[in-house]
Amino acid sequence: MRSAQEPNRNGGLMTPSPRPRNQSQFQSTVSVQKNRRFNILILVVRFATFCFSLASAIFMFTNSRGSGSPQWYHFDAFRFVAIAAAIVALYSLFEIGASVWEISRGATVFPEVVQVWFDFSHDQVFAYMLLSADSAGTALARTLREIDTCTANNAFCVQSDISVALGFAGFMFLGFSSLLSGFRVVCFILNGSRFHM
Amino acid sequence: MRSAQEPNRNGGLMTPSPRPRNQSQFQSTVSVQKNRRFNILILVVRFATFCFSLASAIFMFTNSRGSGSPQWYHFDAFRFVAIAAAIVALYSLFEIGASVWEISRGATVFPEVVQVWFDFSHDQVFAYMLLSADSAGTALARTLREIDTCTANNAFCVQSDISVALGFAGFMFLGFSSLLSGFRVVCFILNGSRFHM
Repeated sequence: MRSAQEPNRNGGLMTPSPRPRNQSQFQSTVSVQKNRRFNILILVVRFATFCFSLASAIFMFTNSRGSGSPQWYHFDAFRFVAIAAAIVALYSLFEIGASVWEISRGATVFPEVVQVWFDFSHDQVFAYMLLSADSAGTALARTLREIDTCTANNAFCVQSDISVALGFAGFMFLGFSSLLSGFRVVCFILNGSRFHM
Repeated sequence: MRSAQEPNRNGGLMTPSPRPRNQSQFQSTVSVQKNRRFNILILVVRFATFCFSLASAIFMFTNSRGSGSPQWYHFDAFRFVAIAAAIVALYSLFEIGASVWEISRGATVFPEVVQVWFDFSHDQVFAYMLLSADSAGTALARTLREIDTCTANNAFCVQSDISVALGFAGFMFLGFSSLLSGFRVVCFILNGSRFHM
């Protein structure tokens, strides 16, 4: 049971209200719980983004089979897929750390205003980058099938296809986390705080 | 000179303030002027998007030279470029109409809440679509150069390159108008009105 002395975490940001203390405190507790659930949802989505983009990068970086067959780094589009996926994996790892920090300590890594805008802008830019890379990768993979590169080296093409497909899955989760962080930006602008759903 | 009887257009949406009537009316006039300037900026950006995406679609749709040479519709990525650019051109034309309507009549085509969300969501989705199409087009155009399709049919490749480049320019303006319509959504959530800068 919570003690009556527990401070109201959002009290400083709310306008003074004529509500009795108990009701205000109850609402504050509900708000903190909702915020915690929202942070856990963000953490799950970030973790999915990390897994898919890391898998996409690994599949592409390891896509070379001896000196006679084609290598991933001979194709611009595949280089773009590998590097974009690696950048998104690193970014997601950082954001997972930031999310765990926020859930465990109740405070953001950067100041709150920097954090919400940092998350949203990077989500947007990296989502565009990953989509662009994987679209280019898809176009190249289809062309390689048409010009008979894949008849001789089918394993190379299959591994490229898997990498691009994993990249698209990563993009879906990154787009979803961009929606969530956009929602946090709106909450911040509305209330001057990332709390308050 | 404005008469004292002119109604305060945003009065119903503002919290009652102890300011004298003249000051409130002056601020309302400033707000309406700012809103008008913002709408004109949106109109200019929409017009630029329309011009570039229409040019991109025309350059791709007319990219065929007799029966012996390659046609744009033989390549998936070029079909995607042409159709995405055409869809964005049609959407931009509709949005130009909506913008002119709003500037001339002072009201949105759909109810305000529908209009701001419609604009923002479609800007986002179509920006992703156009970027994806043009990335795929770039990858295909680069591959065609490597497999000597362009040695025999240089004009075909040059026209494809121009179409893709125009599509990227259209994407830049569409991304910018997505920012502006996102700002209008935030304004709407904040104030219950697309006014109030």
